[in-house]
Amino acid sequence: MDRYDIAVIGTGAAGLSAVINAKIRNKNVIIFGTKELSSKLSKAPKINNYLGFYDLTGNELKANFQKHIEEMEISITEEKVNNIYAMGEYFALMVNEKMYEAKSIILATGVEYTKPISGEERLLGKGVGYCATCDAPLYKGKIVCIIGYNKEAEEEANYVSELAAKVYYIPMYKGAYDLKENIEMLNKKPLEIVGNKKVEKILFDQGELITDGVFVLKDSISPSQLVPGLDVSENHIMVNRLMQTNIDGCFAAGDCVGKPYQYIKAAGEGQVAALSAVAYLDSKK
Amino acid sequence: MDRYDIAVIGTGAAGLSAVINAKIRNKNVIIFGTKELSSKLSKAPKINNYLGFYDLTGNELKANFQKHIEEMEISITEEKVNNIYAMGEYFALMVNEKMYEAKSIILATGVEYTKPISGEERLLGKGVGYCATCDAPLYKGKIVCIIGYNKEAEEEANYVSELAAKVYYIPMYKGAYDLKENIEMLNKKPLEIVGNKKVEKILFDQGELITDGVFVLKDSISPSQLVPGLDVSENHIMVNRLMQTNIDGCFAAGDCVGKPYQYIKAAGEGQVAALSAVAYLDSKK
Ligand SMILES: Cc1cc2nc3c(=O)[nH]c(=O)nc-3n(C[C@H](O)[C@H](O)[C@H](O)COP(=O)(O)OP(=O)(O)OC[C@H]3O[C@@H](n4cnc5c(N)ncnc54)[C@H](O)[C@@H]3O)c2cc1C
Ligand SMILES: Cc1cc2nc3c(=O)[nH]c(=O)nc-3n(C[C@H](O)[C@H](O)[C@H](O)COP(=O)(O)OP(=O)(O)OC[C@H]3O[C@@H](n4cnc5c(N)ncnc54)[C@H](O)[C@@H]3O)c2cc1C
Repeated sequence: MDRYDIAVIGTGAAGLSAVINAKIRNKNVIIFGTKELSSKLSKAPKINNYLGFYDLTGNELKANFQKHIEEMEISITEEKVNNIYAMGEYFALMVNEKMYEAKSIILATGVEYTKPISGEERLLGKGVGYCATCDAPLYKGKIVCIIGYNKEAEEEANYVSELAAKVYYIPMYKGAYDLKENIEMLNKKPLEIVGNKKVEKILFDQGELITDGVFVLKDSISPSQLVPGLDVSENHIMVNRLMQTNIDGCFAAGDCVGKPYQYIKAAGEGQVAALSAVAYLDSKK
Repeated sequence: MDRYDIAVIGTGAAGLSAVINAKIRNKNVIIFGTKELSSKLSKAPKINNYLGFYDLTGNELKANFQKHIEEMEISITEEKVNNIYAMGEYFALMVNEKMYEAKSIILATGVEYTKPISGEERLLGKGVGYCATCDAPLYKGKIVCIIGYNKEAEEEANYVSELAAKVYYIPMYKGAYDLKENIEMLNKKPLEIVGNKKVEKILFDQGELITDGVFVLKDSISPSQLVPGLDVSENHIMVNRLMQTNIDGCFAAGDCVGKPYQYIKAAGEGQVAALSAVAYLDSKK
C-alpha cells in the first residue's frame, strides 16, 4: 500500500490551502472531501472579506479555488474518512471498507452548524451513530432510521439497506434522491430520539416510529470521534500557533480549531499546518 | 482630535486584511503605510500559494489588493508611525511632529530582512538611530549620515538637513532621488559603523567618513522600539491564537508575529486581529 506523506481531510478553504502548500513543497499528498469543495462556500451569498476578492458570491470564490487546484493538477479523493488511528509511525485512515496510510495528517473538517436533535447526544453509542457504513453489521435484520443532511448520506443508506431488515430515510435537504427501492422515505421533521438505555423510537412533528438504530449523517463528524485521543475543547481541536495538535504528526486548521469562522483565517491556518507537517516529515528523515 | 476605534500600522497583506475586516464591522479605522502597499509584494516574482490566485506576480497580487481597498473606499495614510504609547484608555501614535489617537491598534509592520550593518546594533542609541525626524533636534549643527533603504527616507533626510550642519545620504536602493541641494549623496557601500562609546565614523568599501550620528532608515522599526513595553521574543511580537499581545487593546498580525513568512498566513491573522479588536471595543461599551 502507498503510504502518503500527508493526508488532508476536508476540502474547504483550510484543506485546499493545506494541499496546495504541501504540493508546492513536493510532498506526496492526498486530500479527502468532495468535488463540491464545501457547502459553506456554495451557500455564502456575498463575500467581501477575503483579501484580493471583493464583492463576489460563494460560488464565484469556489470557482477560483477550483481553478487553483486544477491548475496545480490536484485531484480530490471523494470519500468520507470515518476514523483515523495514530499508529505511532503512521496514521491509518478508515474509509468504509478501505484503509489509507499517511505519515502525517491535517484535519480541516470544518464545524457542524446544525444543532443536535434532542436525545441525539445522550443516546450516542446506544443506538445513535454517525457512521452508518461502519456500524451497519450491528443492525443485520433490524430496523434502522437514517437522518441524512447531504446527498452522500444516500449512499450510506443504500449500503445499510443490504443488511438491515428495514431502512427509513429522512432527508434534511431538498433535491432529487437516489435511494434503493427497499428504502422508505419519510418527509417528516424529527423532533426527538427517545429511549432509556437504548434507542426505542423517533418522535416526528407528525407521529412516531419504532426503530433499533438511528444514524445522523452530517457533513462532519466531531473531531474527537474522528481521531480518538485528540485534545478537544468545546468541540474545537486544540492547537498551538504552529497548528500542532497534541498528537505527533497530526495538525489541524480552519473552523475545526476555533472561531472566528472565516475563509481567509482558515486558508492561512491551512498553509501553516502544511508547512508544519513538512517540517515534521523533514525532521524524521 | 479624532480618536479612531482602530489604527492599523502596515499595508502588507496583514494590515490590509485587518482594515477591510474592521471596516466591514463598521469601525472608525485608520491605516498607516504606503500606497505601494509593501515592497515584499512588488518584489515577489511568482506566487502560487495564495489560495484562489494561481501563478501570478507580486505586482498582480498587489493590484488585486489595491482594487479591494479602493472598492471599499479605504484610503491609506502615507505616514510612518515612529512610536506608539499605551496611555491606558487609548494609544498615542507619534508621526514626526503629529500625533494620532486610537482606542486599539493592530501592528502589521512586517519584518526587516536586511541584516544590520556591523556596529549598528552595538551603537544603537549611541549615535545610531532609526527615526531621523524624532531625533533630529539632537543633531543641530552637527554632521549626520543617513543610510536610506527606501524613498521615504529621503523626506526624513530633507527634514534633518534643516537642522544639521551637514547631511550625507547613502541610498541602499536604485531610482531617482528627491533630495535638497544641501544634502551630499554618497554612492558607496557602508561596511561598518565605528565608535567606542559613541559613533565616530563610517567605513565604506572605499574610504571612510567622520560623523556625529548615523540614521539607518529601513521599512520597519523593530516592534519593541515601536511600542515600548511590548512582549517580544527573537524580534517577533508574542501573540496568542486571538492575536492579542501582552498590552490590552494591542493586537498584531503577519510576519511581525513570526514564521512562516507568507501572504495568506498574514492575511488570515490580520482578519483575526481585526475581529479581536472589534470584540475588545465592544466589551468596553
Ligand atoms: C451561509 C454562510 C455564509 C458565510 N459567509 C462568509 C463570509 O462572507 N466570509 C467568511 O470569511 N466566511 C463566511 N462563512 C464562514 C465560512 O464558510 C467558513 O469559515 C469556512 O468555510 C471554513 O472553512 P474550513 O475549510 O475550515 O471548513 P468547511 O468549509 O466547513 O469545509 C470542511 C470540508 O470538509 C469536509 N469533511 C468534513 N469531515 C470530513 C471527513 N471525515 N472526510 C472527508 N471530508 C470531510 C466537509 O464535507 C467540507 O467539505 C460563511 C458560512 C456560511 C454557512
Ligand atoms: C522576494 C520575495 C518573494 C516572496 N514570495 C512569497 C510567495 O511566493 N508566497 C508567500 O506567501 N510569501 C512570499 N513572500 C513573503 C511575503 O512577502 C510576506 O510574508 C508578506 O509580505 C508579509 O506580509 P505583512 O503584511 O506581514 O508584512 P509586509 O508585507 O512586510 O508589510 C509591512 C508593511 O508595513 C509598513 N510599515 C512597517 N512599519 C511601519 C510603520 N512604523 N509605520 C507605517 N508603516 C509601516 C512597511 O513599509 C510595509 O509596507 C516573499 C517575500 C519576498 C521578499
